[in-house]
Amino acid sequence: MYDILVRQATILSMETTPDGSLRKPFIADIAVEGQRIAAIEPNINCEARKVIEGQDYLVMPGLVNMHTHLPMSYLRSYGDDLPLQKWLETRVYPAEDRWQAEDILWATQLALWEMIESGTTCCNDMYFFVDEIAQAVDQSGLRAVLSRGIVGDWQDGNERLAENIALYQNWHGADHGRIQVAFAPHAIYTCSEMLLRKISEIAQKYQTMLHIHLAETKQEFDDCRKKHGTTPTAYLAELGCFDNPTIAAHAVWLTEEDENILAQYGVKIAHCPRSNLKLGNGMAKSYELLQKNVGLGFGTDGACSNNDLNLFLEMRQGSLLAKGRLYNPLAIPAEQALTMATRDAFSYLGFPQAGVLQKGNLADFILLDCKQPHFLPPYDLISHLVYSAQGSDVQSVIINGKIIMEKREMKTLDTERIRFECYNRFPRILA
Amino acid sequence: MYDILVRQATILSMETTPDGSLRKPFIADIAVEGQRIAAIEPNINCEARKVIEGQDYLVMPGLVNMHTHLPMSYLRSYGDDLPLQKWLETRVYPAEDRWQAEDILWATQLALWEMIESGTTCCNDMYFFVDEIAQAVDQSGLRAVLSRGIVGDWQDGNERLAENIALYQNWHGADHGRIQVAFAPHAIYTCSEMLLRKISEIAQKYQTMLHIHLAETKQEFDDCRKKHGTTPTAYLAELGCFDNPTIAAHAVWLTEEDENILAQYGVKIAHCPRSNLKLGNGMAKSYELLQKNVGLGFGTDGACSNNDLNLFLEMRQGSLLAKGRLYNPLAIPAEQALTMATRDAFSYLGFPQAGVLQKGNLADFILLDCKQPHFLPPYDLISHLVYSAQGSDVQSVIINGKIIMEKREMKTLDTERIRFECYNRFPRILA
Repeated sequence: MYDILVRQATILSMETTPDGSLRKPFIADIAVEGQRIAAIEPNINCEARKVIEGQDYLVMPGLVNMHTHLPMSYLRSYGDDLPLQKWLETRVYPAEDRWQAEDILWATQLALWEMIESGTTCCNDMYFFVDEIAQAVDQSGLRAVLSRGIVGDWQDGNERLAENIALYQNWHGADHGRIQVAFAPHAIYTCSEMLLRKISEIAQKYQTMLHIHLAETKQEFDDCRKKHGTTPTAYLAELGCFDNPTIAAHAVWLTEEDENILAQYGVKIAHCPRSNLKLGNGMAKSYELLQKNVGLGFGTDGACSNNDLNLFLEMRQGSLLAKGRLYNPLAIPAEQALTMATRDAFSYLGFPQAGVLQKGNLADFILLDCKQPHFLPPYDLISHLVYSAQGSDVQSVIINGKIIMEKREMKTLDTERIRFECYNRFPRILA
Repeated sequence: MYDILVRQATILSMETTPDGSLRKPFIADIAVEGQRIAAIEPNINCEARKVIEGQDYLVMPGLVNMHTHLPMSYLRSYGDDLPLQKWLETRVYPAEDRWQAEDILWATQLALWEMIESGTTCCNDMYFFVDEIAQAVDQSGLRAVLSRGIVGDWQDGNERLAENIALYQNWHGADHGRIQVAFAPHAIYTCSEMLLRKISEIAQKYQTMLHIHLAETKQEFDDCRKKHGTTPTAYLAELGCFDNPTIAAHAVWLTEEDENILAQYGVKIAHCPRSNLKLGNGMAKSYELLQKNVGLGFGTDGACSNNDLNLFLEMRQGSLLAKGRLYNPLAIPAEQALTMATRDAFSYLGFPQAGVLQKGNLADFILLDCKQPHFLPPYDLISHLVYSAQGSDVQSVIINGKIIMEKREMKTLDTERIRFECYNRFPRILA
């Protein structure tokens, strides 16, 4: 008796064939037991507590959002079309000062709802009020790496670091490892050198990842050169930060030598093309980094600078932008973009047993309705997933063996209440 | 007794206030009689044949897709991630050689379905088998400018021009002016000089628009310099083509002098950012053109180079790309992008009485469900429409006073049949 059985679905397993390409979609049954895939076979003759008829569905691994600030969902559209400094100083910081802990609980749930209903099953978050974020993530069923965005000097930074340590102690490994905790020095320009070193040491002690903003703006790059005589990337390498497994978000402003440093240390990049465009920060050299074997996944950033948390659209943007920027229609083709957004990103975040649908792996997958006009003709489903799929095509979501959304109905989140709380709370926060 | 009454909806009329900004969304009733908006008032006390309760909806003008090749919907995902010449020569041209007239009828309907269900109410199309396209457009209820893409020299081009003339005679002004016909010399590199002059003269005779591909690729630009000693834009100006009202698609490769020529002649640009990115053609200087008062709207191009016909996403891409390319978060803000995609584009295509919701104007509008998570908080609806709306948010579509989609059910197209025909036909065409 299995827990879940999906019958006769079209499965894109994201397995690699001997020639290096992705295995073509095939029709099969998929069985789930506990947190894991128990079997994928042409016909599974065994009962299950829950049977899903999969004939109309494409099943694939969930998408991974490698850089989020979940509660910023409440800041969506607050401060669009403004210069970066004015946006930060007149909108983001004042709004963040008005947060109360319970706001964070509901704002995070809004973000989780939006991510899940558009097919994301895992995210890498950095923010504050982290206990509320962890509670919301725990309830939602989403897989996540959480961290406390730490800013400051040695002294006040230490208090925030203590919150990150508490987060680690309380939540790392929760729900059979579904929730992991990283350490998050916010950025080189918001953390003192001493604090960066200290966080890095603590992360090594706990043997977990760092999550940091890196070289997002030209100003960060120029200021670092002036202050430290080197680039943000080289500076972090010198401080020893990259001795930890590190997820660096943005990485727009890099020298060629920086690219080599990222490759040498195995730093993984959360490529956030739409946030970088919208804030006027430019375009990361995604293709060049991939050529140097630097690992990239996609991140939306917060809903205040994107403004959605739709990983399908982020993946598409990443692929299209590389082609257009380099006048090269072959840059980041569909198979590569999809691999980055699923298998690669799961692996970078420490979930190597998610992202490929095969027996024994984690049961994180999504069911898409392929009857929409933008999925016709069904000539190349992998192309469709990257170049024309919509978040709203996702019908059902399974994470860690649990049904999180079914036929677009959220099973773990009360969407009416989330909407109600948002209506009540946002006028105070976005004053 | 009105034909349609939408009650107590949130209306974004796209009217301009005295300070030049858009009128803020307001709650009102909207009444339709025949093809036109009969009234927009806080409370309309009059019966209607059809009443729509609008409390959960945002009502706005439909979006305009300024450059399409409708039947290419059947070529979606056929030839992605290929170099441009190989894409054309091994995929597009051979597939197009296999078209039969009835394929076009169904492929066009697939495109129309996709456009309507994502909120587009008007398009500007160029292709061949134009009578079948016109039949499908007529049946669908979409507002459109149609044209026959004319290629060749004086002799064989003439036959195609004759088809465009027949299209004009049979369809121009059909259904109370809902269907208009333009003339479409395909491009400078596919039409002889004599043919370009002749089409231009004919368009003047019939007093209708030209629709042409302009400066899409670097090769077109370089070849034109070699062959004609001038740029594609200057070449067309010299031939007299721009003496007609002209919609030029792409316009990626322009000199500053070309920008001045386009401004001087009032040429309108169908800006196709996603097609230009995907095919590796680069990024049009949208912001610079707007600064010079060149009119721009957005176009998806065919589904073979995009790969969807979702104008919400095209508009967003246009806005984000300008910001990122110029390191300027203020470039093409939300109000401007939305104006370009609606009011401006309707006006450029010869429908000045669509695109603004006010009494006496054409009843082309869409109803969006704003209860989705990406519409929360409801702080700035105009921002949401540009930066986070999805095509699937569109619930109902009214064009020329007729309900074309209601609660996502297509009223004029048989979507089951369209899907069935696509499944049957595509294996032959995409051999």
